Amino acid sequence: MTSIDMIRAAADRIDGHARHTPLLSSPFLDEIAGRRVLIKPECLQHTGSFKYRGARSAISALGAATRAKGVIAFSSGNHAQGIALAARQMGAPAVIIMPEDAPRLKIANTRAYGAEVVLYDRAREDRDAIGDRLATERGLTLIKPFDEPQVIAGQGTSGLEIARDARAMGVETADVLVCCGGGGLTAGIALALEADAPGLRARPVEPQGYDDVTRSLAADRIERNAQMGGGLCDAILTPQPGDLTFPVMQRLCGPGIVVSDDDALRAMALAWQRLKLVAEPGGAVALAAALFHGQQLQGDTVIAVISGGNVDQPIFDRALATLPQA
Amino acid sequence: MTSIDMIRAAADRIDGHARHTPLLSSPFLDEIAGRRVLIKPECLQHTGSFKYRGARSAISALGAATRAKGVIAFSSGNHAQGIALAARQMGAPAVIIMPEDAPRLKIANTRAYGAEVVLYDRAREDRDAIGDRLATERGLTLIKPFDEPQVIAGQGTSGLEIARDARAMGVETADVLVCCGGGGLTAGIALALEADAPGLRARPVEPQGYDDVTRSLAADRIERNAQMGGGLCDAILTPQPGDLTFPVMQRLCGPGIVVSDDDALRAMALAWQRLKLVAEPGGAVALAAALFHGQQLQGDTVIAVISGGNVDQPIFDRALATLPQA
Repeated sequence: MTSIDMIRAAADRIDGHARHTPLLSSPFLDEIAGRRVLIKPECLQHTGSFKYRGARSAISALGAATRAKGVIAFSSGNHAQGIALAARQMGAPAVIIMPEDAPRLKIANTRAYGAEVVLYDRAREDRDAIGDRLATERGLTLIKPFDEPQVIAGQGTSGLEIARDARAMGVETADVLVCCGGGGLTAGIALALEADAPGLRARPVEPQGYDDVTRSLAADRIERNAQMGGGLCDAILTPQPGDLTFPVMQRLCGPGIVVSDDDALRAMALAWQRLKLVAEPGGAVALAAALFHGQQLQGDTVIAVISGGNVDQPIFDRALATLPQA
Repeated sequence: MTSIDMIRAAADRIDGHARHTPLLSSPFLDEIAGRRVLIKPECLQHTGSFKYRGARSAISALGAATRAKGVIAFSSGNHAQGIALAARQMGAPAVIIMPEDAPRLKIANTRAYGAEVVLYDRAREDRDAIGDRLATERGLTLIKPFDEPQVIAGQGTSGLEIARDARAMGVETADVLVCCGGGGLTAGIALALEADAPGLRARPVEPQGYDDVTRSLAADRIERNAQMGGGLCDAILTPQPGDLTFPVMQRLCGPGIVVSDDDALRAMALAWQRLKLVAEPGGAVALAAALFHGQQLQGDTVIAVISGGNVDQPIFDRALATLPQA
């Protein structure tokens, strides 16, 4: 499993490649939240989400011969783009298996980052069988999106940055709200904070109806979502917490927080207006919790990760429509 | 006039207050431009534009007794917000004179940052007379928006950051494109680059119809715009180059570049899509020049400053409407 030493080693490997994102703020957001709000904008990371960290960490941890054969991933979203770009930068071929009904823009972006995209028919084909066959034929290494120690280590590098930058701003205690799907980012940040900023506590934030992590933490065992797909926060809809990420979250995280889709849209609009940042719905749930669910928080400062910004225009328009008209 | 020593002293004074903005990039923008594009996102600066740097620099350069009496500024836009926040942070009262028909949101924001807003009737009242009276009565110090040595020094601190960060990325020669109104940011950056990165050359970028600096540089004497107001790029519409800024630009800058309003809107849309940044029209003209006017540039890398992101929603909607629909 991922250790703090693995996170520090990942930070060394991705140094100069992944961006060290800053901690941003706005007095207008502080006023809404009733406390100081610091934002970690991973939407500014390469490929528009934190996923690049884990992808670069995992691919750079492979031996040279293994890496040269290539990597494979299943994703129609941010993990696909992170893997595609990191693989190209390190000279590793990358195959991404995507459903053929994935948004054209995401397919186009993943190809533009240099990956070979293999499309499959969700109704008639078995994704895993296609992946297994390609991996065996070509000797590709599968990079899982979250339940993979070197991916968690890569995501944890953002936690090292939060620990260092929060301390430099005089923040020693705070809840650190993390947009949570399978828990790779949340677990990675929790491990980094445990080592470098024990007064900061990671807390997962999820959308209503997809609150598997929140319920699992409350029940002290892994619980699944009743539904899958169809939600606005597509980037963080996973069936259940990971086998590797859940024990970490259980040991280190505070209670989960659940926000509505409307909360996420309103947070996107405020990120646009007050931070000049583009957030996607799943990337805005932590900010939504900081702004609109303060009664569940402790302390006079809260840190919220905006985990990604890859949003289609119609959904972004819906977000801006939540602003009061001037 | 502003010297490199004044810029370094301003950097010391604003250190820990102004944000050191990063240099961002996207392979998609590189492909459009046909060269490497690095973006300096001053839209992420406090108050959403570079103006905070000059405001903080100028107010912090005042003696304690002068500062305690307060400052005054004329602005309905980014300078107003920069002065308001910097003054509040340093305990200086701030009075901002704004036309009573200024957008309500800008008036509200300026007040929210802690300034006293004095409204006047453009048709019937004399702005300067009101300002003079208040300044005399209360002993306020006028902070001009660009033709003021300590303001130029503050804006120049972004040039010090560009010089340092470009070198760390291996960039020794490049055009540095700067959104240009009165020339405070352009002149400040040019002075910083002269000292710290002589292979980088500042070049002003202006909107069509308001290209006073470009024409002045070409004619080697100050020329005025034929029209004022009404343009999309409101943040950078000034009647003519400043008496202090023009000689600096004349000595150090490459030729100006002129872009259309439509170029600016397209650049805003690409900043949203590829950089996850919110730019205002006047803040996007330099990126527009980098992307769409490459034949006027030299070298395999270009650096473009996004100078601000304070844009109203209807104009932002117009920008996104320029994107091809998926």
